[in-house]
Amino acid sequence: MVKEKKVILDCDPGHDDAMAIILAASGISNLNIEAITTVAGNVEVGKNTLNALKVCDILGLEDIPVAEGAERPMVKEREIAEAIHGDSGLDGPILPEVPNKQTVDTHAVDLIIEKVMASDGDITLVPTGPLTNVAMAMVKNPRIVPKIKEIVLMGGGTFGNWTPAAEFNIYVDAEAAKVVFESGVPIAMFGLDVTHQAVATDSVTKELDGIGNPVSGFVVELLKFFAKTYKEVFGFDGAPIHDACTVAYLMDESIFDMRHVRVDIETKGEFTYGMTAVDTLAVTGREPNVNFAYSLDADKFWELFRKALTSYSD
Amino acid sequence: MVKEKKVILDCDPGHDDAMAIILAASGISNLNIEAITTVAGNVEVGKNTLNALKVCDILGLEDIPVAEGAERPMVKEREIAEAIHGDSGLDGPILPEVPNKQTVDTHAVDLIIEKVMASDGDITLVPTGPLTNVAMAMVKNPRIVPKIKEIVLMGGGTFGNWTPAAEFNIYVDAEAAKVVFESGVPIAMFGLDVTHQAVATDSVTKELDGIGNPVSGFVVELLKFFAKTYKEVFGFDGAPIHDACTVAYLMDESIFDMRHVRVDIETKGEFTYGMTAVDTLAVTGREPNVNFAYSLDADKFWELFRKALTSYSD
Amino acid sequence: MVKEKKVILDCDPGHDDAMAIILAASGISNLNIEAITTVAGNVEVGKNTLNALKVCDILGLEDIPVAEGAERPMVKEREIAEAIHGDSGLDGPILPEVPNKQTVDTHAVDLIIEKVMASDGDITLVPTGPLTNVAMAMVKNPRIVPKIKEIVLMGGGTFGNWTPAAEFNIYVDAEAAKVVFESGVPIAMFGLDVTHQAVATDSVTKELDGIGNPVSGFVVELLKFFAKTYKEVFGFDGAPIHDACTVAYLMDESIFDMRHVRVDIETKGEFTYGMTAVDTLAVTGREPNVNFAYSLDADKFWELFRKALTSYSD
Amino acid sequence: MVKEKKVILDCDPGHDDAMAIILAASGISNLNIEAITTVAGNVEVGKNTLNALKVCDILGLEDIPVAEGAERPMVKEREIAEAIHGDSGLDGPILPEVPNKQTVDTHAVDLIIEKVMASDGDITLVPTGPLTNVAMAMVKNPRIVPKIKEIVLMGGGTFGNWTPAAEFNIYVDAEAAKVVFESGVPIAMFGLDVTHQAVATDSVTKELDGIGNPVSGFVVELLKFFAKTYKEVFGFDGAPIHDACTVAYLMDESIFDMRHVRVDIETKGEFTYGMTAVDTLAVTGREPNVNFAYSLDADKFWELFRKALTSYSD
Repeated sequence: MVKEKKVILDCDPGHDDAMAIILAASGISNLNIEAITTVAGNVEVGKNTLNALKVCDILGLEDIPVAEGAERPMVKEREIAEAIHGDSGLDGPILPEVPNKQTVDTHAVDLIIEKVMASDGDITLVPTGPLTNVAMAMVKNPRIVPKIKEIVLMGGGTFGNWTPAAEFNIYVDAEAAKVVFESGVPIAMFGLDVTHQAVATDSVTKELDGIGNPVSGFVVELLKFFAKTYKEVFGFDGAPIHDACTVAYLMDESIFDMRHVRVDIETKGEFTYGMTAVDTLAVTGREPNVNFAYSLDADKFWELFRKALTSYSD
Repeated sequence: MVKEKKVILDCDPGHDDAMAIILAASGISNLNIEAITTVAGNVEVGKNTLNALKVCDILGLEDIPVAEGAERPMVKEREIAEAIHGDSGLDGPILPEVPNKQTVDTHAVDLIIEKVMASDGDITLVPTGPLTNVAMAMVKNPRIVPKIKEIVLMGGGTFGNWTPAAEFNIYVDAEAAKVVFESGVPIAMFGLDVTHQAVATDSVTKELDGIGNPVSGFVVELLKFFAKTYKEVFGFDGAPIHDACTVAYLMDESIFDMRHVRVDIETKGEFTYGMTAVDTLAVTGREPNVNFAYSLDADKFWELFRKALTSYSD
Repeated sequence: MVKEKKVILDCDPGHDDAMAIILAASGISNLNIEAITTVAGNVEVGKNTLNALKVCDILGLEDIPVAEGAERPMVKEREIAEAIHGDSGLDGPILPEVPNKQTVDTHAVDLIIEKVMASDGDITLVPTGPLTNVAMAMVKNPRIVPKIKEIVLMGGGTFGNWTPAAEFNIYVDAEAAKVVFESGVPIAMFGLDVTHQAVATDSVTKELDGIGNPVSGFVVELLKFFAKTYKEVFGFDGAPIHDACTVAYLMDESIFDMRHVRVDIETKGEFTYGMTAVDTLAVTGREPNVNFAYSLDADKFWELFRKALTSYSD
Repeated sequence: MVKEKKVILDCDPGHDDAMAIILAASGISNLNIEAITTVAGNVEVGKNTLNALKVCDILGLEDIPVAEGAERPMVKEREIAEAIHGDSGLDGPILPEVPNKQTVDTHAVDLIIEKVMASDGDITLVPTGPLTNVAMAMVKNPRIVPKIKEIVLMGGGTFGNWTPAAEFNIYVDAEAAKVVFESGVPIAMFGLDVTHQAVATDSVTKELDGIGNPVSGFVVELLKFFAKTYKEVFGFDGAPIHDACTVAYLMDESIFDMRHVRVDIETKGEFTYGMTAVDTLAVTGREPNVNFAYSLDADKFWELFRKALTSYSD
């Protein structure tokens, strides 16, 4: 596969972040991973960084730079989601304590700035955690803004999972989200509306288990743990693989039903902090700024995923 | 039918408000309408009052007192919705300029207070417009609060129609909604989630048209106009009969799938003013205060409606 | 003195409210007190009403109607200030348990509406407590708004005493204040800037004590208690007679240095709820809506007060 | 003078910023200027950087690194104050188009992080513009927080100059201010309360003019322009030398009357965004976090300034 699309994966792995990386690095991927950057989100940034490095070890991603990023949100205090991802942030599979791979010596914010400034305007950012690194980069060096090709992100939705109105990634750093959504960079947004359709049911997990290579084995362990917490916390049957939607979109847009709408970030509300107000009915009269994913073709999505995992058998 | 349940209909007719009244006053209704009170909402309160009186004329409701209420919201400035209901607030059917029936000389706020204070705690309030009258009554005389049996209201939802986050009735006077939702009175809430399932499609309208009495003829004219504006403004096929859900619930609870959840009213947000934050996933840990309607059985709903209209043939 | 100016005193007595009534009812007053209305504020409305009645008993105000008003703010929850005024709301002087005078049977909100609607547009409202009654009256019957001559109120300031940003009266019901300040009625505002200059020092109290009639004796008892709590809570030497500034202004404008400025009411802030944002430097470009008292001539103020108390010797 | 106190001057010169640098670099100063960093504020950051460099040229500060910082606030959009400081940000004196001195190649945010991390915890930050750089440094590397000795800043006050509630520096980036004020680092705050007492009257300017060296001549040109705009915009007689108060405090604390109080930053308010809510009366019960300057001894302040300018004659 020609690696024609340059991406930076900005993440907080995280079960579904890990699966986004696995998809992006697979043999069927058209993505050239320029860097992986980490951010505080599901758990502390240090844990997320270790997890990113371990996933790279498993996938043999020796040459992709991993840079650690923001330990805290831009303005509000830090919030973590251990209930969902376990103490390590990637509970489930048995992993070595210490990864082989090491981070580069550059802060994620600076690596994003460097890569984008050195590019021909052809880098897509793929944030699957809170948007702190991306927003910090935009504030530190606003000249990157017109050079970012697109931001394909997981976050938000027309409803919430962390509060009644807000999804976790946006809630954790709504001010960062505001900076990103008001930046003018083209945004493709994968919120809970669509990611709750990307559920790894038992039969999906069973099918993936049949692939039988080390990566698919790793994925199955992730899915089992993730399904357990989604059952306990939200009463779901099967875990939604939120973050992988972003990469799936970059690999095959036809999986998703997208619409161009206005999305504004609420940072003042008493009960709605971190909400992404999605103007589905076009009642605001405000300029659309987001390509919003309303639904996906679950069969196509899992078929892509199955092929990606199978490619690791080669 | 035994008129066992005492209700006060607090409304801003309004096509769907009219249909709520028609349902409540029908021969199959178990509701004893103690009063009809009006409030500024879809259009100015004066127009809404005229419409309420004319509907009473059509239905022969000579003994039910109609009281005019609040001309403006409690705190914010007035907003109206002429685009949806036409200039009169009840465009469509040809109606006399001046109704026969007249209002009582009491303000709606005071009539609500009087009726509730004189009752045995058995009056249910049925607000289908902004909650100004009900909240004003609670503030003017807090002793009514423990004497209100229940509030069965149309408003809010997990998404909006006036802004991306807010439904019209709540948006118009979110401060009033906050007073009502925090009052401790049992609330059954019919928001857009369920009322968008109460759509009068062409085939529904055609069936109702076949009933062939004056009231059904009036309803069909209402539905035709309402369907037209919903098509133009929102692109809907058929108009949702929002307000009638409240009365339908009081006549037959089994039509609806209800769940007890926490609902908070957003009054501070920049993009979310007037949102009803519905804690569907029970993530807030806050005490449930609302019996929220998630869905309805459309066949049962329209069957009830058909029977109600047919009863006007007798 | 010709009683040429019609006023309604809307208050929560309250030591300084009592002194406003005493000033207004004195032999040197040009005010015709049309009614006294009470509101929850310093303490519960019931206690405030009893205090208003007892003050009327002391002053022999048999013909002035006293109406009880709002027990709670329009939107937020009730807050009281017992630390400042004692358990009764008027601690200090020994008063009978039960007043002779009784309230009229009309709610304060309705009495304000009735009086204003029946007037020739010549009634000035003088609120010295939270603005709940006045705002409720405006919302219940917006037709009073153009018929109110002026609102001369105690509240707000460029700094706070209940929070760093907000004065008690406005903080207790900032939504009501917003309604009033945005109503378009001419407002003369006596906030902490000026009322903190109306301090009854020891020498003032001693001078008033020398007058030697029952009313001056009552005032001296009020001042002693009030001075004690202001010393304890705020470290002040002498109590500021906030509310009396309003009546003093109506009796002699020349006591005060007034300027026409924009004042907006903050209802959204996290740390500033209930602030009156006073545009002293005229930086907002918004239309002035308030005649704001910046300072007073303390000698003139106390001379007026001394004369008023002396008039009760006749 | 022993240069015993290490400082980083973080500024947006700016007439009064320039005077802070002049004071800090004078022969009577006890401050060791580790770096000068610039931030968007009064004008664009690029202009502020040029001004900082030119001031260094005038003062012969060849060895002090100057680093350019944030071009925009952390969350909200950029706002500038050209009306006050003229188009260049330092209008008045005739200056060369291009400075000799050049900036270092490090971003201000990184230079702050580097200097603080390399220090023994003995560096004081002296921000006299918006707090963007300092907050960005804290977010990018939270490990600097416990290593900052103190933050001595110009900003805020109990009243505003940009809005009725907010001073310019805090208003421009209230989110950054929130980060800094909640960081736990000891803060000495010089707001409008005290800086409006540091007014360069005509007689002050005349006296400084008599010193007769190039630096005093430069200062006099600055003061003349600054006085003119303060006269035009605010009606002041003489310009307040806001920013120089910070450095004066570090050189002689006895000039100022300081009190330890709670200060919170308002970021949600409708009319109060950017206010520093100063708990002067200690009514919040919140932990004091700021050493707040209430007043200064103007004679001592200008005597210090006169001596500092005189030292440039040597």
